[in-house]
Amino acid sequence: MALIVQKYGGTSVGNTDRIKNVADRVAKYRAQGDQVVVVVSAMSGVTDGLIKLAKDIAPLPSEREMDMLLATGEQQTIALTAIALHAVNIPAVSLTGAQAGIVTDGVHTKAKIHNITPKRVHDLLKAGNVVIVAGFQGETEDGQITTLGRGGSDLTAIALAAALKADLCQIYTDVDGVYTADPRLVPSATKLAEISYDEMLELASLGAKVMQSRSVEFAKKFGVVFEVRSSLNDNPGTIVKEETKSMEDIVVRGVALDKNQAKVTLVGVPDKPGVAARIFKALGDAVVNVDMIVQNISHGTGIPATDLSFTVDKPDLLKAQKVIAALQKDIGFKDVLADENIGKLSIVGVGMKSHTGVAGKMFDVLAREGVNIGMISTSEIKISVIIDLAKGAQATAAVHKAFIG
Amino acid sequence: MALIVQKYGGTSVGNTDRIKNVADRVAKYRAQGDQVVVVVSAMSGVTDGLIKLAKDIAPLPSEREMDMLLATGEQQTIALTAIALHAVNIPAVSLTGAQAGIVTDGVHTKAKIHNITPKRVHDLLKAGNVVIVAGFQGETEDGQITTLGRGGSDLTAIALAAALKADLCQIYTDVDGVYTADPRLVPSATKLAEISYDEMLELASLGAKVMQSRSVEFAKKFGVVFEVRSSLNDNPGTIVKEETKSMEDIVVRGVALDKNQAKVTLVGVPDKPGVAARIFKALGDAVVNVDMIVQNISHGTGIPATDLSFTVDKPDLLKAQKVIAALQKDIGFKDVLADENIGKLSIVGVGMKSHTGVAGKMFDVLAREGVNIGMISTSEIKISVIIDLAKGAQATAAVHKAFIG
Repeated sequence: MALIVQKYGGTSVGNTDRIKNVADRVAKYRAQGDQVVVVVSAMSGVTDGLIKLAKDIAPLPSEREMDMLLATGEQQTIALTAIALHAVNIPAVSLTGAQAGIVTDGVHTKAKIHNITPKRVHDLLKAGNVVIVAGFQGETEDGQITTLGRGGSDLTAIALAAALKADLCQIYTDVDGVYTADPRLVPSATKLAEISYDEMLELASLGAKVMQSRSVEFAKKFGVVFEVRSSLNDNPGTIVKEETKSMEDIVVRGVALDKNQAKVTLVGVPDKPGVAARIFKALGDAVVNVDMIVQNISHGTGIPATDLSFTVDKPDLLKAQKVIAALQKDIGFKDVLADENIGKLSIVGVGMKSHTGVAGKMFDVLAREGVNIGMISTSEIKISVIIDLAKGAQATAAVHKAFIG
Repeated sequence: MALIVQKYGGTSVGNTDRIKNVADRVAKYRAQGDQVVVVVSAMSGVTDGLIKLAKDIAPLPSEREMDMLLATGEQQTIALTAIALHAVNIPAVSLTGAQAGIVTDGVHTKAKIHNITPKRVHDLLKAGNVVIVAGFQGETEDGQITTLGRGGSDLTAIALAAALKADLCQIYTDVDGVYTADPRLVPSATKLAEISYDEMLELASLGAKVMQSRSVEFAKKFGVVFEVRSSLNDNPGTIVKEETKSMEDIVVRGVALDKNQAKVTLVGVPDKPGVAARIFKALGDAVVNVDMIVQNISHGTGIPATDLSFTVDKPDLLKAQKVIAALQKDIGFKDVLADENIGKLSIVGVGMKSHTGVAGKMFDVLAREGVNIGMISTSEIKISVIIDLAKGAQATAAVHKAFIG
């Protein structure tokens, strides 16, 4: 008998038939004697519909009131899921985030979980119930409803699994698990049986959008082993856990292509201390998220100057250009170039720590494919390169073939 | 400066434009220095949509989970209303029933309010906010979400007005107030400027479906003066309050026709003690609501027997017939007759207490119209008669003309 926390996302509870499927799945685990805590998201479309209503009334609605509004989405799903479990004769009780003891700070729309007091969940489990908890939401110490922001339901599940000392946490979604690459780009991509937290984190931030980084970070911090798997079949998924020795045997766990970046290059930046700091502070103040940064010596001028390139999320490009334009006179760089037609190709694997020549091999593969490398950035377990977007699919497939097969 | 509780029903907040209208109305009261507490229902259609989802999953969903589900409807409206108030620069904070301190018993889907601790409402008002409270819902002592059943939002408003010692409670709806008769039946019907609780109660239970009886009863018990008025215009509505001396000058306050009743007659019931008790106990056990009861001596038989007639809500007729059929052998009555083509025509007025000849005048009017009277029932301030449904409109108009004009 195990205690399992299962999380079902919006598409997994997207209509009443899907909700009945969730009940059937929970019933199977119950039949083998497990205790089950179910965390659910809002039915797909519900949250967007509520946001639309609010924006019809005011373009920038109050964040406190948005939390009050959006928290209803998950509350509806927990009730419907409990009703579906009753229909298959399983005792079940739904709890809002607040009722489940999820206490957060007061930062509305992106609250952080402070602590969880799962006494009520424990008591209900002990009395033989499946407990269904609303994901994505909590309550402040003084009783304000909060939401946890994007990916918040995953966070609820992992935090609950930690607080309840659950034996397993299952994240049900509409993909079968974590793949070595996006199967639409690389048909030979295979599902990973397991992956380390750090690899998952790199992949999450690299455009393999299975889960938000902070849920994985939370799981890593509290040592919560979780499985990403599909709610549409019974296939085992991918287990995400602390790195083991055997994991290092595999050099590259996955290949990811992020098409959502744009590159900005400042040409002829005066080579003086403090210039880079001013540029990136200004971007930070404007809430532009900068990813890769590369600085090179500028060629062809007598004055000491450099070229400075960085990448930002594509939707932030215009904002970044405005910030940079406002600084031009003051800092005195010569020109600004922007390129939206880029892709960030990355390979990730804890095995890189103990294997040499990985970068060289990657660059060699790209050279053979005639793919030009614009920028390079590396970490202990990752190598990323900026390439021409038009060659993204070809490059991804070639790198996957060379390292994984 | 007054403290006003305003309640807006489902059609008054039926879409985002309507919600903006509510904000505009609240703004007017604020501009004249009033403090305002707003109680809202779910947007029209939302509750029905949620019920449909639940019934798609299970025909008889758990009442606890239905409360969890349906409470989200009002929670959405409070957030949207707060957002609409912010958009017109009025500080506003939304509160769920639980947050507003509305404590109920644990009878899910039809909970009773135990007490209200409106400290949070007071504090928010004091700080200069409009406070928006979710109608129809509360929380038990041990933190279970409950709903108050049909008409629950009116009850929330009136109970809050009592707890806050508000100067006025306004019930905004889609009618202009309480009329002397249904204007669709009687074109000369006029809106009443005021009406007593008891008259309102009689009219509520007689098919003038402005408000549920228990909200009026609550208002009477706690002396809450309230106004029923339209959210679509600025016309004054009808004030409902304790009876005053001057009210007695008017003999008949209103005329109502209830088309939703059916008549059951048991022919030849043995005239023995305890028979009526058994019949109505059986109907009560089957949750059939019996309204009028009339017993007469049965004619044409040697054995002492009576005819027993009673009326039930039309949707309950089949159930009532089944209950009665099951008793026939045991009790030994001769026959059962059922009639769905009846109407209950009533006149209501506190003035009846001090005026004589009212019933005679009513029967005389009906006789002149050729309307046959099937059953008669009276109270201190009401006379009801059962008539042929086909003559309902004609009879209503004639009685209205004779007593009111």
